[in-house]
Amino acid sequence: MRIAELDTPALLIDLDVMERNLTRVAEYAREHKLRLRPHIKTHKIPALARRQLELGAAGLTAAKTTEAEVMLAAEPPDMLLAYPVIGARKTERLANLARRTKVTVALDSEEAAQEVSRAAVAGDVEIGVLAETDVGLGRVGIPPEEVVRLAECIGRLPGLRYEGLTFYPGHVKSMDENGLAALRTVDETVSACVKDLERAGLAPRIVSGGSTPALFHSHLVSAMNEIRPGTYIFNDRNTFACGACDWEDCAVSILATVVSTSVRNQMIIDGGSKTFSQDRLPTGGEGFGRVMEEPEAVFTRMNEEHGFVDLSRASRTFKVGEQARVIPNHVCVAVNLHEQVYGVRGDRVEEIWRVEARGKLQ
Amino acid sequence: MRIAELDTPALLIDLDVMERNLTRVAEYAREHKLRLRPHIKTHKIPALARRQLELGAAGLTAAKTTEAEVMLAAEPPDMLLAYPVIGARKTERLANLARRTKVTVALDSEEAAQEVSRAAVAGDVEIGVLAETDVGLGRVGIPPEEVVRLAECIGRLPGLRYEGLTFYPGHVKSMDENGLAALRTVDETVSACVKDLERAGLAPRIVSGGSTPALFHSHLVSAMNEIRPGTYIFNDRNTFACGACDWEDCAVSILATVVSTSVRNQMIIDGGSKTFSQDRLPTGGEGFGRVMEEPEAVFTRMNEEHGFVDLSRASRTFKVGEQARVIPNHVCVAVNLHEQVYGVRGDRVEEIWRVEARGKLQ
Repeated sequence: MRIAELDTPALLIDLDVMERNLTRVAEYAREHKLRLRPHIKTHKIPALARRQLELGAAGLTAAKTTEAEVMLAAEPPDMLLAYPVIGARKTERLANLARRTKVTVALDSEEAAQEVSRAAVAGDVEIGVLAETDVGLGRVGIPPEEVVRLAECIGRLPGLRYEGLTFYPGHVKSMDENGLAALRTVDETVSACVKDLERAGLAPRIVSGGSTPALFHSHLVSAMNEIRPGTYIFNDRNTFACGACDWEDCAVSILATVVSTSVRNQMIIDGGSKTFSQDRLPTGGEGFGRVMEEPEAVFTRMNEEHGFVDLSRASRTFKVGEQARVIPNHVCVAVNLHEQVYGVRGDRVEEIWRVEARGKLQ
Repeated sequence: MRIAELDTPALLIDLDVMERNLTRVAEYAREHKLRLRPHIKTHKIPALARRQLELGAAGLTAAKTTEAEVMLAAEPPDMLLAYPVIGARKTERLANLARRTKVTVALDSEEAAQEVSRAAVAGDVEIGVLAETDVGLGRVGIPPEEVVRLAECIGRLPGLRYEGLTFYPGHVKSMDENGLAALRTVDETVSACVKDLERAGLAPRIVSGGSTPALFHSHLVSAMNEIRPGTYIFNDRNTFACGACDWEDCAVSILATVVSTSVRNQMIIDGGSKTFSQDRLPTGGEGFGRVMEEPEAVFTRMNEEHGFVDLSRASRTFKVGEQARVIPNHVCVAVNLHEQVYGVRGDRVEEIWRVEARGKLQ
């Protein structure tokens, strides 16, 4: 089948670009002796997780237990839940997972550690735990000075296997001078945490971190020995805006059809917030995607089914019925909206993958 | 099952509130002799569409042909596609639908009319068409002065049944003085269009319009004889912000669990952009939802799985593991993210509905 024959909107993955992205990060991780545990939230497809494992990934990362269950189909030797698993149903599911593969969870409270411990004991399994610290994002993670106390708690609780430290420097938005300075601060914070843990007899086996903008600067955080990037498999407009990839490294685009040109200097495409990500660029900058056929087109706003594209600055026009390919701002959110995605090479559709872990909320 | 036993995040529908909302609008439509053709995009559930029909709706409205196919299960006597159906696969699907029920489509270009005509002829069916005009939103719809030309084109094409006029006053955001003035302008524009059509011998049988903020002022648009509201079944934070409902008319809330309180004056809940709508309030105003337990909590931002709730102004605290119910900004977008929703009465879960038309993009 050819791309032009697809019904729109359709999410396309350029297979050659994807393979190059996967290989590049696998090589970077090998070169710097970093364990690679890719986050599956970006693709949500077991076949792609399997490819990541074939290329040397040590395991997989997921946010939700229900996602992790789907990913068992990729036979990961190791699964990290990079999210506090709270609530009896979820911890029970976690314990069941631990019967199928090696499981580790990130958490940032004694309450969470106790809950996971209870489920591990009840399920007669061992669950690995990483203590999560906040290195500047202000989301989850205890302050660095409380890491030893949390690690001690984890070490004491039955059924838990203390594995080390985790953090997410999501506040580092690009690798300009400010970004590099922020990354140096992260490096210092993490090194200090590791020293504190060593002094307390709790030397971390795993120090897990990394974020997309800083992906290829991960080696600058000297104590870190594991990265868990997600977006790198496809990249998106955010990744480009962060300076972490070029346009030709974006494997993802959404094929859309022009459905109306009634308003002057504007086209409406058949995808809005039900099809694209509503994320704005964290680096600032306008628009919800890049129209590949006309970079001066601005995807200014969206309703559920309508994408508004301003063509005032464009050097070409579009007709009703024409197709356009748009690189979304945030691919992870976009993939979650699609039942299936299409692997393409040139103008041919070579793969159709169901997004099997789509919409797994629990 | 009790609500507290649900795994989170979970989308709850208060059944009593929903029934009251449905009845109120059905009565309003009857009182003002308005045809009611509810938009199913809000619930995406055939069982709820059936309830709308039982209460007197003349038919249903959908945005996509794939949604309309799912809604055939509700046995609608009449189905409106309120979106330009462009592309051979979609028009063929439309023609197939026309074999199962009476079908009408809204469109705003001669290209679209020709495509639908070709599919109707090929499928040996008749498809109703409404000419869409822009009354101020600047999205789809030809300028009012071009309506007669489009209607003439529709009237000439084989396989099409010219039905009349449609518009969407989505630029009217509230019923304050400015909103009422805008609605008067809509009334004048629509009346002028209808007169033009009558003069051209193309008197519209249907004049379809309406929007959520102006729902209970629909009778002020004198030429309009059909409304197609969606959100009214559940209502949401947008509806409240527009002044079109009270909090006790919001049937929807998302049950979430607190997963981290590591950052002072903040809680993280287990739902973000994969669970809630990322829509901001069109009326301005901060936040992504209303925390029912603490109205002074501000849902400031979100990542895919993390909802950031600022508690600086709150008079209470939340503990890890506690549950909270949050009314989303835009319920239609939120429902599309959930595999199933839960109908509740008091603290009991009485219904579990699969969101059957979820993620239908084509």
